[in-house]
Amino acid sequence: MAELPIAPVKRLLKNAGATRISDDAAIKLAEVLEEIGEDLARDATKLAKHAGRKTVKAEDIELASI
Amino acid sequence: MAELPIAPVKRLLKNAGATRISDDAAIKLAEVLEEIGEDLARDATKLAKHAGRKTVKAEDIELASI
Repeated sequence: MAELPIAPVKRLLKNAGATRISDDAAIKLAEVLEEIGEDLARDATKLAKHAGRKTVKAEDIELASI
Repeated sequence: MAELPIAPVKRLLKNAGATRISDDAAIKLAEVLEEIGEDLARDATKLAKHAGRKTVKAEDIELASI
């Protein structure tokens, strides 16, 4: 946890039209995205191994995210 | 787009056990997470308005993410 920085995540909320954003909301969104990112990263790593590669490629992320 | 920085997203892949990671893979994962984040941010903003608030709170993110 705690890999994703809060400021860019807060900007996502601003861009979505939020007038005001509590600090907790930005932190919560970063946490949710990080959990989703961890799941995708795990799946993509498995998919790369499954394809006989040591390198995770964009196609693994793509397949993991569908 | 292009709010989330690549380096922390690459660390998610490293933490997931990826031995090697192509630059494209980290960029793709950042893009996927950003799209998900944009959707969640939009939904959370609507939920805050629905509750008669101008401030997006953590509870809006939580409700948007289920």
